[in-house]
Amino acid sequence: MKKVAIIMGSDSDLPVVEKAAAKLEEFAVPYEVHVLSAHRTPDEARQFALGAREAGFGVLIAAAGMAAHLAGTLAANTTLPVIGIPLKSKALDGVDALLSTVQMPSGIPVAAVGIDGAVNAALLSVQILALSDEVLAEKLDAARAAGRESVLAKNAAVEARFNKH
Amino acid sequence: MKKVAIIMGSDSDLPVVEKAAAKLEEFAVPYEVHVLSAHRTPDEARQFALGAREAGFGVLIAAAGMAAHLAGTLAANTTLPVIGIPLKSKALDGVDALLSTVQMPSGIPVAAVGIDGAVNAALLSVQILALSDEVLAEKLDAARAAGRESVLAKNAAVEARFNKH
Amino acid sequence: MKKVAIIMGSDSDLPVVEKAAAKLEEFAVPYEVHVLSAHRTPDEARQFALGAREAGFGVLIAAAGMAAHLAGTLAANTTLPVIGIPLKSKALDGVDALLSTVQMPSGIPVAAVGIDGAVNAALLSVQILALSDEVLAEKLDAARAAGRESVLAKNAAVEARFNKH
Amino acid sequence: MKKVAIIMGSDSDLPVVEKAAAKLEEFAVPYEVHVLSAHRTPDEARQFALGAREAGFGVLIAAAGMAAHLAGTLAANTTLPVIGIPLKSKALDGVDALLSTVQMPSGIPVAAVGIDGAVNAALLSVQILALSDEVLAEKLDAARAAGRESVLAKNAAVEARFNKH
Amino acid sequence: MKKVAIIMGSDSDLPVVEKAAAKLEEFAVPYEVHVLSAHRTPDEARQFALGAREAGFGVLIAAAGMAAHLAGTLAANTTLPVIGIPLKSKALDGVDALLSTVQMPSGIPVAAVGIDGAVNAALLSVQILALSDEVLAEKLDAARAAGRESVLAKNAAVEARFNKH
Amino acid sequence: MKKVAIIMGSDSDLPVVEKAAAKLEEFAVPYEVHVLSAHRTPDEARQFALGAREAGFGVLIAAAGMAAHLAGTLAANTTLPVIGIPLKSKALDGVDALLSTVQMPSGIPVAAVGIDGAVNAALLSVQILALSDEVLAEKLDAARAAGRESVLAKNAAVEARFNKH
Amino acid sequence: MKKVAIIMGSDSDLPVVEKAAAKLEEFAVPYEVHVLSAHRTPDEARQFALGAREAGFGVLIAAAGMAAHLAGTLAANTTLPVIGIPLKSKALDGVDALLSTVQMPSGIPVAAVGIDGAVNAALLSVQILALSDEVLAEKLDAARAAGRESVLAKNAAVEARFNKH
Amino acid sequence: MKKVAIIMGSDSDLPVVEKAAAKLEEFAVPYEVHVLSAHRTPDEARQFALGAREAGFGVLIAAAGMAAHLAGTLAANTTLPVIGIPLKSKALDGVDALLSTVQMPSGIPVAAVGIDGAVNAALLSVQILALSDEVLAEKLDAARAAGRESVLAKNAAVEARFNKH
Repeated sequence: MKKVAIIMGSDSDLPVVEKAAAKLEEFAVPYEVHVLSAHRTPDEARQFALGAREAGFGVLIAAAGMAAHLAGTLAANTTLPVIGIPLKSKALDGVDALLSTVQMPSGIPVAAVGIDGAVNAALLSVQILALSDEVLAEKLDAARAAGRESVLAKNAAVEARFNKH
Repeated sequence: MKKVAIIMGSDSDLPVVEKAAAKLEEFAVPYEVHVLSAHRTPDEARQFALGAREAGFGVLIAAAGMAAHLAGTLAANTTLPVIGIPLKSKALDGVDALLSTVQMPSGIPVAAVGIDGAVNAALLSVQILALSDEVLAEKLDAARAAGRESVLAKNAAVEARFNKH
Repeated sequence: MKKVAIIMGSDSDLPVVEKAAAKLEEFAVPYEVHVLSAHRTPDEARQFALGAREAGFGVLIAAAGMAAHLAGTLAANTTLPVIGIPLKSKALDGVDALLSTVQMPSGIPVAAVGIDGAVNAALLSVQILALSDEVLAEKLDAARAAGRESVLAKNAAVEARFNKH
Repeated sequence: MKKVAIIMGSDSDLPVVEKAAAKLEEFAVPYEVHVLSAHRTPDEARQFALGAREAGFGVLIAAAGMAAHLAGTLAANTTLPVIGIPLKSKALDGVDALLSTVQMPSGIPVAAVGIDGAVNAALLSVQILALSDEVLAEKLDAARAAGRESVLAKNAAVEARFNKH
Repeated sequence: MKKVAIIMGSDSDLPVVEKAAAKLEEFAVPYEVHVLSAHRTPDEARQFALGAREAGFGVLIAAAGMAAHLAGTLAANTTLPVIGIPLKSKALDGVDALLSTVQMPSGIPVAAVGIDGAVNAALLSVQILALSDEVLAEKLDAARAAGRESVLAKNAAVEARFNKH
Repeated sequence: MKKVAIIMGSDSDLPVVEKAAAKLEEFAVPYEVHVLSAHRTPDEARQFALGAREAGFGVLIAAAGMAAHLAGTLAANTTLPVIGIPLKSKALDGVDALLSTVQMPSGIPVAAVGIDGAVNAALLSVQILALSDEVLAEKLDAARAAGRESVLAKNAAVEARFNKH
Repeated sequence: MKKVAIIMGSDSDLPVVEKAAAKLEEFAVPYEVHVLSAHRTPDEARQFALGAREAGFGVLIAAAGMAAHLAGTLAANTTLPVIGIPLKSKALDGVDALLSTVQMPSGIPVAAVGIDGAVNAALLSVQILALSDEVLAEKLDAARAAGRESVLAKNAAVEARFNKH
Repeated sequence: MKKVAIIMGSDSDLPVVEKAAAKLEEFAVPYEVHVLSAHRTPDEARQFALGAREAGFGVLIAAAGMAAHLAGTLAANTTLPVIGIPLKSKALDGVDALLSTVQMPSGIPVAAVGIDGAVNAALLSVQILALSDEVLAEKLDAARAAGRESVLAKNAAVEARFNKH
């Protein structure tokens, strides 16, 4: 199976980003985690993207905050799908990272998920890989069903508490 | 090859959305275009998503404006990758559609592109399908190279005009 | 009397949402509380809305955060009045939920109250039911009068403290 | 049947507001249209709200732009449901009117619809009145069905144009 | 001397608003503090404004949060200058109150100060009263000079700490 | 009577600013108009403010766009009341000018009116001068009454057109 | 004298960017204009920045819209000062470009000017070069004086028109 | 070598601003720190800027919050490069300071860095001074290399932890 690369701009982003890793573990999707900065290690980031398809990656997940250029930088150097996670930072509540990630120019797409949306980035990468992997597709359906069950269980608890009439 | 579905919430969205269709034509990726509203035809939208994998689709592209729920509604009913195009409408400059599309809850991912980003939505779907289609991957690389050449040609023209010193 | 349904997208929304239940208790308006997610249990949400009028509901209150589609999803499946409570979440201060709730397309209205405005959602539902229930209308007037008295009492305390001249 | 009052802060708001009147005509719901300003005719606005229930109104619709206080002013003087339409004006794209309308303090609810959402304000008032009027409820269902048919017809046209494969 | 009225929409606003009172004490300007809500005690708010000039007030200061209509409601009922203090509340960081206060329609001005700007509201009212009170004008100049001295003293301390070269 | 100074940062602001002059003419309040830039003629702006009280001015109105520092610069050099008009410019819809005008630090108040609010700036200055001029106060009341009559006349026209039932 | 490089992400940005070139002409500062895209020609952009100091450049000006990464990409590959011009594009009024340009991570500064601020970008580059070029410094002072004279002349015209009293 | 001036509007800004001083120490660039307020000590701020070039300064760094006029005020009185640090304050998350700093009118540039971006302001001033100081330029390159090494080391640690497959 193709691998997923999870790349963050700074290791201080780990508390959010490791949720993506945990979710990929859940689906037994092979992945790697790297710290690569679009601004502090631009050449390494570029080389990583240029070689990613060859190295067996299928999807790149890039997490960055503020003027979040990491996803765009990777996308500029590969035609693999790149998923961007805008991270909330000290000021501006993540709006800066969201706009810097999603408003890409025509020709170089980035797939943005919500602010700090590491779990969804992982799930999206699994959905992409599942297009050519039926086992993975079935796991996704099972996870959906489990998610549904979990809501129904919570609903039952809430109904039991409130709806006594 | 799996098909791409381009779904818009209203046929008034066609001027933006048809750029996605044109881009898919360019890559000879099979696609269908549909008008399905999360709010005016919720059942048809749901049924479409539920049957999409079976019907041979690999990626769903959903374009909607304002409180843009279309991508989320499709994503809630399929585990295929769903790409959301937030559309600019009369008020609020597309911010409403962007946030309604991208800020999905954990468990149900949507891949958002930029406001009115129909071309990038199409390219992202091609990138996803190219993971299991080497010819498509080569076409993507060729398109990138062409894009690069186009910028270099424009650069040459600008340099010729300005840099006479 | 027709019942009010209070529906939240996740049971983690209870601390805000239960203020709506408490307010309905105050007015002795029958209500039910449910956890139904537009994205994780889309079919249950839809079925609930489709059957709501038949089941004796008069108003649906939907509370959700982020890309808050719950009110819109319910509204798409019923012609009962649907009141949306946009919830503040970790990022973006509730702006995402507000826009996702209020900017509905023409034809499918949602009545939005302020961010985390559970009490007002309950009061609005009572005002709606009171149109055909004079006792309820009188209770509303009494509650208004009590609210006014409460402000006047606070005013008296503040005046006593500051206006000694 | 109870009447709907459509109140606008300035007669320059008519191009947006008259869509609400047209929609109420469609449903044969009795209504009146008034120009009353929270700031320029505060006493008239207040008197109107104070006497509205007595005068046979069931719902008040208030349309105003900028620091849009009209809906709140009416709501402060009646316990009838008040629907606020935030209007887009020259600056700020309607954000000022939206926040001034929707962010009401606890105890005095306003039901906000989207920016310039006159049609939805009218539909919401019909939905409210339909709670005690089955004929009206059936008309709403018929209008929904017609809206659905209209989308399906547009879908058929779009499918015919694009999906020739 | 004419009096200043400090009016707040809720007594929970006191921690911010009492800074205005303290500043007026400093200038020995007579003032009163009241709790009057545009929405919960609309008639009292209106009566206060209608009678304010007669009652010897020269300036009204109104502090309110969220859909902050208090300043506008007072301004609609008097031609005395009304100063609005937008208050920060739980969501939206005070933007709602700022826009609801400052974006008044033509004909009914409100003088807005910054978010939670109680001190400046008091100073502005002193500046207005000082137009016909030379002693007050001199006090203002003295306060300015003291403010300047305070910055210079802090500057001296910072210079002593950093500029040893 | 004390004079009002209307100061704009650039003569391109005249189309908005001359509405303030026209309004002052209406009230026969003496005024002067000047072009003074906080950034291009900082010394002239400062000298103007320093000498304004002496020169017989009672209120300064400052209109500026973008990083609108003009009102703040004047306020820093006088204790006369300074009214700021934030002007809408090419980008950002006036938000930049609004925040640059209203968010003044403690100690140096500016009285902000709405974006492009020249008429209200003029009215506010008249209200301030009217505190010590009963004739002016009566003119203000008359203007209010006329404004009310104008709305009532428009209301009558709208009622005649719509309320035929 | 060191040269200034003006780099734009797309030749469609020329109408804004050429104002920077014109301003540099005015100061007889040598410059070059290039079209280089952070996303479409990432390698050329990188090579340009890597070689810029060697090639005799002293300042790089980068103009880009949307998720404007150009300034950041150049800054990541040189320690020359990089000035970013955020460009207004079809949606979002330039906010996306402003935040993508200015919110750079610690260690890799970009000097942002205002939205579409090409003239100021050029002036800032001249100010930087003038630090080691007294003739240039004098030209800057002369330009400032001329700017001041221009405002004073406009002031005289406005004063002549309005201040006849 | 020319000196850098670090100027803050209030000594309460020191916790952010002293990071700029520390960074300049690192590069052994001479600097001074001052507290000067555009609004509370306008004359001192102006005099400082007017005399700065003469006094041996090469770059001015100005840090201010809210309606942050300090950088603009300095820039209006010198043709030295002025770097503005917008500071986050209690409300609005720094957006007010960012827009007040960056949106300068044509002719008077300010180089804005990100919100609370004191380190980058210092680095930018070093980059400017390094244009005529090769030793400084080499130090900048060395710092960049060190920054790169630091990211690579963190990457190695993260890779060791996650990439065991």
